Amino acid sequence: MTESRSVEEEENMAFQRVVNAFLQYELQQTQWLKGKQNMFRLGPKELDRLCGEGEKSGVSLVVSHLQSIKQRINTNQQFLNTVTLPYEDLFPNQTKIDPQVTNAPTKITAYHDEMEKVKSTLRQIAREWSSYGAPERDQCFLPLLNELKERYPTPESRSGIRVLNPGGGLGRLAWEIARMGFVSQGNEFSFYMLITSNAILNKSKEQDGTTIYPWLHSFCNLLKSEDQLKGCSFPDELPSLPPGSDFSMSAGDFLEVYTEPNTWDCVVTSFFIDTAHNVIDYIECINNILVPGGVWINIGPLLYHWAEMPGEQSVELTFEQIVNVIKSFGMQIQEEKSKTYECIYNSNPNSMMNLVYSAEFFVAVKPKL
Amino acid sequence: MTESRSVEEEENMAFQRVVNAFLQYELQQTQWLKGKQNMFRLGPKELDRLCGEGEKSGVSLVVSHLQSIKQRINTNQQFLNTVTLPYEDLFPNQTKIDPQVTNAPTKITAYHDEMEKVKSTLRQIAREWSSYGAPERDQCFLPLLNELKERYPTPESRSGIRVLNPGGGLGRLAWEIARMGFVSQGNEFSFYMLITSNAILNKSKEQDGTTIYPWLHSFCNLLKSEDQLKGCSFPDELPSLPPGSDFSMSAGDFLEVYTEPNTWDCVVTSFFIDTAHNVIDYIECINNILVPGGVWINIGPLLYHWAEMPGEQSVELTFEQIVNVIKSFGMQIQEEKSKTYECIYNSNPNSMMNLVYSAEFFVAVKPKL
Repeated sequence: MTESRSVEEEENMAFQRVVNAFLQYELQQTQWLKGKQNMFRLGPKELDRLCGEGEKSGVSLVVSHLQSIKQRINTNQQFLNTVTLPYEDLFPNQTKIDPQVTNAPTKITAYHDEMEKVKSTLRQIAREWSSYGAPERDQCFLPLLNELKERYPTPESRSGIRVLNPGGGLGRLAWEIARMGFVSQGNEFSFYMLITSNAILNKSKEQDGTTIYPWLHSFCNLLKSEDQLKGCSFPDELPSLPPGSDFSMSAGDFLEVYTEPNTWDCVVTSFFIDTAHNVIDYIECINNILVPGGVWINIGPLLYHWAEMPGEQSVELTFEQIVNVIKSFGMQIQEEKSKTYECIYNSNPNSMMNLVYSAEFFVAVKPKL
Repeated sequence: MTESRSVEEEENMAFQRVVNAFLQYELQQTQWLKGKQNMFRLGPKELDRLCGEGEKSGVSLVVSHLQSIKQRINTNQQFLNTVTLPYEDLFPNQTKIDPQVTNAPTKITAYHDEMEKVKSTLRQIAREWSSYGAPERDQCFLPLLNELKERYPTPESRSGIRVLNPGGGLGRLAWEIARMGFVSQGNEFSFYMLITSNAILNKSKEQDGTTIYPWLHSFCNLLKSEDQLKGCSFPDELPSLPPGSDFSMSAGDFLEVYTEPNTWDCVVTSFFIDTAHNVIDYIECINNILVPGGVWINIGPLLYHWAEMPGEQSVELTFEQIVNVIKSFGMQIQEEKSKTYECIYNSNPNSMMNLVYSAEFFVAVKPKL
């Protein structure tokens, strides 16, 4: 290692760690599952208590459940391999992990939080691109899409309207906007999201053609064992678009990519502003890139992602302060549009526990010249 | 340190750590608050954006907000000192922490998770003993209390009915049961809860006579700054009972304390069974201590507390498996009583984020001889 790496080298390393984490999923989850065989510390009598009358023995019930999880971990890995496939040759020096040999030596061990991101990427697919996610999407995407519809009621006029969606995740919202006829661009920072959205947007051949298992990774808050094993097919809609559509995804830090003033007619954000180190910078950037008369439509809570992270700047404003900051840039909040929506985020639809957000929706308008 | 400590020594040390964490609250929270002055990394222009029109400057707004938090941390410490007061002389060798000198040297530094427990104890007071907690209590205590009422409709008959509430927390549920006329005992394992419930149950002189600030500790998901500063007075009802009442709290591990068969008419549990290393042991114990014909009334989710804790046994059953285990002990589930209740747990009532549980309610009856 040299003392100071170039930005490009740093980015390369970060990207390599992400690809590596995707490839180590099965290895690590199989190890985790072995730990779960703790359950077998139960005696045969206790195991038999787990099953209802007339069923097979508790031992075979547990064995077959763990076996089912193991198979599904393998299926998830097959999908994750297709996601990372285009990038494997980028790192010739990395020991290739053979997904068939689960205890193959690896050069880099994925950290716990990296593996958590792989697992949350699987859940994000369910949220954005499966029919399971439809209720969640309706809660937070519909208010945004309806606002666009109301503001630009004539579909023919939309091909001249440029809409940006920072924090674009797996691209579903930006794609929905493109489908309505707008010029639409999603922007995303996370490599986990970027390589996965690339696979979904560009390689999906068949509606619901791929199945993954996003809810394998927790034994908690389950009503039934089968809830943990549920498969999730995607994409619920093929991400193709009519000819002449203008849809793109951009990679990188929102603040660095979007510096050109007066370029976007609309900025649409969902569960995004609290990913900032300093939300004031985001607001300043949004105000800057909007054309005069342009609108910012937002929905989301204020779960600041950098709060309590040692050494990281984290400016945690209240919603009231955010409204003040927006106004201080000269933007007008359309108060009559402001509303609070209850939104669930990235849940197992059958879980006995859910995070429920009171997401604030608002529309802010940059004054005309 | 000797090579092997007696159980008593171990318990003593654990207890000392808890008292120590209570006493270090102000010291650690003040340090945390200093870190939050990160906010001041904002320039004066940015700070001024935080306030609305006609208000004072952003700098003075932030300064006075942080000052208000600091004062309230001190008030919380005053209360925590009264909680630990009876136990301070138990540890003559420990350096006494002077709450007035926030950077006084301390012998033991409280761990992060210990401090989290002190903060969650403050929130638990709001949940169990303040009017803020009434909606949460109604969600999960009322179904239990109503079931008791329905089963024992004549108040006069209740003085002969022995009701046990394991996982008793700060004693509110057990006290409510005692107030209805039952013989009532709460059992609790956590020293954090035990010393705090002792203070509330035995030293409260005046309704709403003490005020603490349970929601100081997060800047996230706030609508207004004042939501973070809200005070919470307690107890909303004086925990006195009419003469002749039979109410007690017991300390210790449920499985170790309750081994005498056929001794309780009712076991009432709320958000308890998922605190087990092995929930089958809890069910076996409950079945054992109930008199023939006795009932177990339960409400709660399955957020197993020991899941994913390295080296700890954690048997994570689904709700369906739990029902099977209960039946396997010969108990009958009264299916028509089973119901799912939406319950919030220990939230800031104004937070933009809430954990919502689908808590399963059921009644299980031990057969008569």
